[in-house]
Amino acid sequence: MNKMQTTEEAAQRREYADALFRKAGIVITEAEREKIESADFGLNRFEETGLGVLVYVNTNRCCAKELAMWPGQTCPEHRHPPFEGTPGKEETFRCRSGLVYLYVDGDPTRDPVCKPPPGRYTVGHEIELRPGMQHTIPPGTLHWFQAGPEGAVVSEFSTASRDELDEFTDANVVRT
Amino acid sequence: MNKMQTTEEAAQRREYADALFRKAGIVITEAEREKIESADFGLNRFEETGLGVLVYVNTNRCCAKELAMWPGQTCPEHRHPPFEGTPGKEETFRCRSGLVYLYVDGDPTRDPVCKPPPGRYTVGHEIELRPGMQHTIPPGTLHWFQAGPEGAVVSEFSTASRDELDEFTDANVVRT
Repeated sequence: MNKMQTTEEAAQRREYADALFRKAGIVITEAEREKIESADFGLNRFEETGLGVLVYVNTNRCCAKELAMWPGQTCPEHRHPPFEGTPGKEETFRCRSGLVYLYVDGDPTRDPVCKPPPGRYTVGHEIELRPGMQHTIPPGTLHWFQAGPEGAVVSEFSTASRDELDEFTDANVVRT
Repeated sequence: MNKMQTTEEAAQRREYADALFRKAGIVITEAEREKIESADFGLNRFEETGLGVLVYVNTNRCCAKELAMWPGQTCPEHRHPPFEGTPGKEETFRCRSGLVYLYVDGDPTRDPVCKPPPGRYTVGHEIELRPGMQHTIPPGTLHWFQAGPEGAVVSEFSTASRDELDEFTDANVVRT
């Protein structure tokens, strides 16, 4: 794949994420639109395993992001380790539109709605988040999540975010 | 004013705040609707000096709130002091709908858009926030804000929030 295609692809993904935000009633600036990141976790299967991310604010004390998820897209299993004397990132996911299924450590749910994509997934306690519903993940907790059939927009409120420290269950996954 | 009226008033304010949220595309649950607080800062002039507040999450590390502001309503001047070994609350205001004018320490703006309501106001550096625009307030910074003529919905992302510690410039203002 040449650089030209990659740039075009990135632009298309930003456009799609922005459309999801707009459908959810979320207004962003022109400058923010250009900053939307499409994270593919080094797997090059973005629509299956990936995430559109707009960071609103990320200081060394707190962070807020808007996540755009393609239909059925998965954010792969990971946890946030302690760093620099802090317990690690604590985060709250709040569903704004669509549906999102969060899987965390705990009793595995029988007949879960989602099937994880290829890769290594070890936790299966399902939490369904419809618009207006939220869940807080303590630091160090393994979790992954998948959007429903119409995609989803999820707000993330957290302590300082250091994505590059995230520990993924699947050794093939990288977050840069 | 008897208790009955007060309860009715609180319900009306919750309804109005919820309508502002809905107009901004923000979905909240039934349980959250009941938790919307109408802060009048002890002045009993709510539509002039007050704030509708829905706390999404407030742990001892981070906090996220949705603020509903009536047309022309003002949140009075205050700052967030250090507490328990932390530098104090750092907060980001992000306008979701309507218009909000934020006034902070710094060169006073000539011909500011807003006039503060009766009370004590000492800072006048104006920052206009239209939908999708945001501003971060460092701990200890004096600030106040007023909604435009159609009211506003403002998301607040911050470190731990301890409203009862807020230091108001006007000694008549209390936050309980």
